[in-house]
Amino acid sequence: VVSADMLVAGTHFFPDTDPRDLGWKTLAVNVSDMAAMGAAPRWALLSMALPAADESWLAAFSAGFFECCEAFGVDLAGGDTTRGPLNLAVTILGEVPPGAALLRSGARAGDDIWISGTPGRAALGLMHLQGKLQLTDPAPCLAALTRPQPRVALGLKLRGLASAALDVSDGVLGDLAHILERSGVGAVVEEACLPLADLARFTADAAAARQCLLSGGDDYELLFCAPANRREMIAALATPALPLFRIGHISAEPGLHLLDIQGRRLPLERTGFDHFANTTAS
Amino acid sequence: VVSADMLVAGTHFFPDTDPRDLGWKTLAVNVSDMAAMGAAPRWALLSMALPAADESWLAAFSAGFFECCEAFGVDLAGGDTTRGPLNLAVTILGEVPPGAALLRSGARAGDDIWISGTPGRAALGLMHLQGKLQLTDPAPCLAALTRPQPRVALGLKLRGLASAALDVSDGVLGDLAHILERSGVGAVVEEACLPLADLARFTADAAAARQCLLSGGDDYELLFCAPANRREMIAALATPALPLFRIGHISAEPGLHLLDIQGRRLPLERTGFDHFANTTAS
Repeated sequence: VVSADMLVAGTHFFPDTDPRDLGWKTLAVNVSDMAAMGAAPRWALLSMALPAADESWLAAFSAGFFECCEAFGVDLAGGDTTRGPLNLAVTILGEVPPGAALLRSGARAGDDIWISGTPGRAALGLMHLQGKLQLTDPAPCLAALTRPQPRVALGLKLRGLASAALDVSDGVLGDLAHILERSGVGAVVEEACLPLADLARFTADAAAARQCLLSGGDDYELLFCAPANRREMIAALATPALPLFRIGHISAEPGLHLLDIQGRRLPLERTGFDHFANTTAS
Repeated sequence: VVSADMLVAGTHFFPDTDPRDLGWKTLAVNVSDMAAMGAAPRWALLSMALPAADESWLAAFSAGFFECCEAFGVDLAGGDTTRGPLNLAVTILGEVPPGAALLRSGARAGDDIWISGTPGRAALGLMHLQGKLQLTDPAPCLAALTRPQPRVALGLKLRGLASAALDVSDGVLGDLAHILERSGVGAVVEEACLPLADLARFTADAAAARQCLLSGGDDYELLFCAPANRREMIAALATPALPLFRIGHISAEPGLHLLDIQGRRLPLERTGFDHFANTTAS
């Protein structure tokens, strides 16, 4: 399997981002694409446009990039360097047995919808950096933003279990919509099942936390579906470091609905969410 | 085999380049990397940063890109689009039997050095566009610059015949230096064997023509080495549309020497050439 991502200064990251963190993240977001397909990442190609040959910046960027290579068993196999506005384009290649890749198109009515970890942290971290919110304990949220941990091990275990999967880069609702579209199904997400308690540790602003969880990107957690009869097998994959949350189910009826705490079922258009409101750097 | 190239506006092409030509060239330079390895190009991933969603520009760019896809049997398999200063990053994947890929490292003392076609045209075309030179018949040179023809068919035929190969993007001398470095050998290039007669059709400025041939890039012809006992087999691969020129030989003695018309053997440093003087858009 193969995937490509392009990161542009000012669009995907602040130009003054710590280059070591940026190096990590540049590869990590691509490794995450492999995780989402249940693939083992193997080789990467890195093409960079740089405004100037800044050796210390490049050394720090490379250190972070190779740190991520080592963490996930990826070899840098090629690429290109050129002069231009800062641009980082990675292509990643991975391996998966024939027919075993997790796709977006396999969700079926009755499937459970699962999310790994505690998405929303990265978006909270970004709001903190932007001065829009003052977090009580910013470190875990900033770490989620600057050093995302692709869920490769989980992706490999989901082969043969999950019916559909992707990594959350546009927010839980936005990315779930991608699965629904490709699979030709609908979904009901239960607010009561969302891991909002984790985010409450960082901020008392419950509305912001909810918005970050449902619409924030950049956590690179896995969002996946699986038949209800595999519920116990899936639950057994959770670890203290990486909990798994069952947040709803797939329905034959099209559309994405939120079931609120009072049990009211609201179509997404009437929940007040703009699931395209990305909280990115630009 | 896999290869990546990044093209940046202002560095690799003029921002006002005809988008259809640019689309062709963006893929063609990558297809050329496959040709240089003796590989059949198969799939491409295109990541683009665009300053604005200009539909007519994008339609023309796509038309040129897919024209090149069709010409060389390449499927666009993925990629990414984002907002940012114009940047075009392609990764191409191709197929070659195990062990059959042409490398830069296989040149041996005594090998002939060959060049396909008539390199220098693209650099002359660029000088014409820049107003540095007035060509008598600019069309073939402008076509070489804007619509380079990767030598895929020749690359496939060179499998098992050539000992080393690459595509000329930095000028004949600059690219030959890459082969010498990787192969741990030297070379003697005979000026009398260079296809300068072709360039004389376009300009009376013999010095400019010679400079364009030896140091100009962007023609994407193949530069390759082959044992002398395969000379007739190689010569038989030439066609009226794609002549092949034997321009010198590999030597055990390191260094790159030019044998001038008078038979004087000059090391590259004393020939007056700056083989890094690229005639690119920047």
